Amino acid sequence: MVDFQKVSKYIDAHLNEHVKKMQEFLRQPSVSAENYGVRECAQLLKSYLLNLGCKDARFIETGSLPAVYGEYNAQAEKTLLIYMMYDTQPFKGEQWTSPPLEASLVDIAPFGKCVIARGAINTKGPLVAFLNALESILAVGEKIPANLMFVAQGDEELESTHFAKFVEEHKTMLSKADALFGPDASQDQQGKVIMSLGWKGIEYIELECSGKSWGKGPAEFDIHSSDKSWVDSPAWRMVHALATMTSIDGNRVLIDDWYDNVRLPTGEDLELIDKLAETLDEETIKQEMKVNQFINDLHGKELLLQYLYSTTLNIDGIWGGYTGPGSKTVLPHKVTVKMDARLVPDQSSEEVISKIRKHLDKHGYADIAIRSLDPYEWSKVSVKEPIVQTVIQGYRRLGYEPEIWPHNASSVPYHLFNRKPLNLPFCDGGLGHGGRAHAPDEYFVVEGNERVMGLAGCEKSYVAILDAYAQYRQIE
Amino acid sequence: MVDFQKVSKYIDAHLNEHVKKMQEFLRQPSVSAENYGVRECAQLLKSYLLNLGCKDARFIETGSLPAVYGEYNAQAEKTLLIYMMYDTQPFKGEQWTSPPLEASLVDIAPFGKCVIARGAINTKGPLVAFLNALESILAVGEKIPANLMFVAQGDEELESTHFAKFVEEHKTMLSKADALFGPDASQDQQGKVIMSLGWKGIEYIELECSGKSWGKGPAEFDIHSSDKSWVDSPAWRMVHALATMTSIDGNRVLIDDWYDNVRLPTGEDLELIDKLAETLDEETIKQEMKVNQFINDLHGKELLLQYLYSTTLNIDGIWGGYTGPGSKTVLPHKVTVKMDARLVPDQSSEEVISKIRKHLDKHGYADIAIRSLDPYEWSKVSVKEPIVQTVIQGYRRLGYEPEIWPHNASSVPYHLFNRKPLNLPFCDGGLGHGGRAHAPDEYFVVEGNERVMGLAGCEKSYVAILDAYAQYRQIE
Repeated sequence: MVDFQKVSKYIDAHLNEHVKKMQEFLRQPSVSAENYGVRECAQLLKSYLLNLGCKDARFIETGSLPAVYGEYNAQAEKTLLIYMMYDTQPFKGEQWTSPPLEASLVDIAPFGKCVIARGAINTKGPLVAFLNALESILAVGEKIPANLMFVAQGDEELESTHFAKFVEEHKTMLSKADALFGPDASQDQQGKVIMSLGWKGIEYIELECSGKSWGKGPAEFDIHSSDKSWVDSPAWRMVHALATMTSIDGNRVLIDDWYDNVRLPTGEDLELIDKLAETLDEETIKQEMKVNQFINDLHGKELLLQYLYSTTLNIDGIWGGYTGPGSKTVLPHKVTVKMDARLVPDQSSEEVISKIRKHLDKHGYADIAIRSLDPYEWSKVSVKEPIVQTVIQGYRRLGYEPEIWPHNASSVPYHLFNRKPLNLPFCDGGLGHGGRAHAPDEYFVVEGNERVMGLAGCEKSYVAILDAYAQYRQIE
Repeated sequence: MVDFQKVSKYIDAHLNEHVKKMQEFLRQPSVSAENYGVRECAQLLKSYLLNLGCKDARFIETGSLPAVYGEYNAQAEKTLLIYMMYDTQPFKGEQWTSPPLEASLVDIAPFGKCVIARGAINTKGPLVAFLNALESILAVGEKIPANLMFVAQGDEELESTHFAKFVEEHKTMLSKADALFGPDASQDQQGKVIMSLGWKGIEYIELECSGKSWGKGPAEFDIHSSDKSWVDSPAWRMVHALATMTSIDGNRVLIDDWYDNVRLPTGEDLELIDKLAETLDEETIKQEMKVNQFINDLHGKELLLQYLYSTTLNIDGIWGGYTGPGSKTVLPHKVTVKMDARLVPDQSSEEVISKIRKHLDKHGYADIAIRSLDPYEWSKVSVKEPIVQTVIQGYRRLGYEPEIWPHNASSVPYHLFNRKPLNLPFCDGGLGHGGRAHAPDEYFVVEGNERVMGLAGCEKSYVAILDAYAQYRQIE
């Protein structure tokens, strides 16, 4: 058991240094898409892990940007895999009020002082906050209550292509962990704490309909639109092919066997959904998205079930022909569509591709090409898992009752650890708040207010969570 | 009757000066889209008309770029409206082997010396050639055999929006003409002379499907694609709306009453089609478009009827959501489609808009907006019209038998003169050849070879046509 008060006092007393360390890390660029500063940032992170006491801290090459790996041996019974990322989105061409690499402290109402920087919330800020929490435990002579296996990826913003290989190649090493914890700052602007116990999978594809592969229509370039009367149109072909894929309202997928592997929500899910429906603020959500009404004007529990447990087929983008101003008259030689399918248990990204392929073939569109860009599988953890319960207890120790989402509609690469062969339970969490991820003026709250924790509260929540994990394990 | 031999000799003797005049006119930019040099070019053209003897040559303001107008009184019985344009497409950012404003003489096989410039063939080159021909007639003491009413537009490349108003406002003045002649260089690369006796109309529209006007889906911006499970998609809506508009092959328009006003080809049309089918080179046409086969694998007469006499609905462009590299996950808030309908007699651009509007309303898509960009009506002239017969006779005098197309699948603004209230018969023509209109290295052939006339032959053909017109009128 950690002396929480003692560590808390230490954190409060050393907050300035902790902010400075966060600034140091944020000032080191790590833009993976541009390979800008990424290895230097990995080097800095490695030095942090060495300083903490991870004697084997090192790069593990993945063929692209390295994973930073380090084990902290606390001589504890249990081992947590600490999942992190150290790369960020680009910021070139964006308009920031405070430069993205300056990591200045700026007042943002109603949060007080915040650090503004690329990566502030996603996720270099929380990463440093977690390391600060660990240092604070050690600094006051306490023990870190679990062995820690740090795994920090450098290509999260590049769709984790190489990181997936890393996990596959090091599964024996990684299988020593009992659970995955992801340091995060999980409060929203009002201070509400949100937990997600599952994530949908995704299959992102491009469909291409071209005269070249069709054997009709213009094969090489867009031709004059007056030729439409004697030449077939790949654009109309794409429209009609797409129209076979969903109901007229665009909400039911009409591909054979699409829903075959959709598992109904469990009893545990439904209990959590009932509870969630009580606090769901539909109006705020609609206002943020600028949406007048949800699908079929659903509300409450029905809305949540639709949101979290339905598989979708979405058009992310479509383009072909002339798309500039005015009226250029062309018959396009190809049209491309970006689509994503969101996958719920027990769907797999693989089955989606093969079902779409079969569907197109069946309707006579064997020539329409499918390119798979970015598959993630779904992931899911029970609320009863020790790692989940300890995060909840950590929150409660600091006076917060989390809003628990049994599933989340978006997609993260936790499946790499959560699904076979590792089957690790996972939870991310931590108090604190940040915003504008992937956007200008990304921020992490340092000062905070009566509802939203600042950096000190964030670090204390990590201490509370780790302590709860150790205690939970002892009870177990 | 003009002494053709005498004029021909004069043209041959003064060819260098004629080339220089063409270069002068081409070196004066007249890019209407950028309002670059257009008024200066109009001024130059006005000075040419004054020099020719048009005492009233002047600008007629249209609210945008002026029309250049001038009457040449030959004291003849009949009056020809000489339709010209003096503006050009832009060339910024294009890669030319010889600069577009230099109008250099460059060898292009197999044509010999050509002038390379923006506007060389479309249509500042033929314009100067026609004026050269007239000057040559006068220089040898002959009379121009018809009164000429020059009408040169400065916004042809801007969809003639203001020019249409000019014609409307000056219809009394323009109604003095008996026929319209458009100076052109109508030979293809092999020297074949092509004539078109009709043009399809066009209605160019944009359809926009947005969450804002729909009242469902994201109203203001693209949102995260994970929201597809509880938010409706304007992109799917557009796909399904489009799919109602044509048969699955994209070739039959399924909009109510679409084909109501389609007139069958006349007996004269069918006779010309039979003749045309004998010389139609399907393989070359397919090769130029890079098309493997025509619609329904049609050939010969059936193919020509389909090409020239069928109304179409074409998708010119479509775009919405994320269209860059990789996988950005968004639910687009709007999708826009550019379409054009090609109109055959007796369809009107107005009826097309109202039929599409009714169709969308009927299928529940009242929220999808339609913007009309660029309507042209169809135009048509009988092969028996004197102006057509005189152009044919002009060609024959120089040893060419033209390939006559009773209709053309593309669209030009002749309807402004050919339809009510002016009802002018029209014909464009002239020997000579040029190419790469709207593209880099646009050229006009100056030297020529045994099949393709150069500038001298082009000018002589105008003399022959004018002479034939006067003679035809005398016989009539």
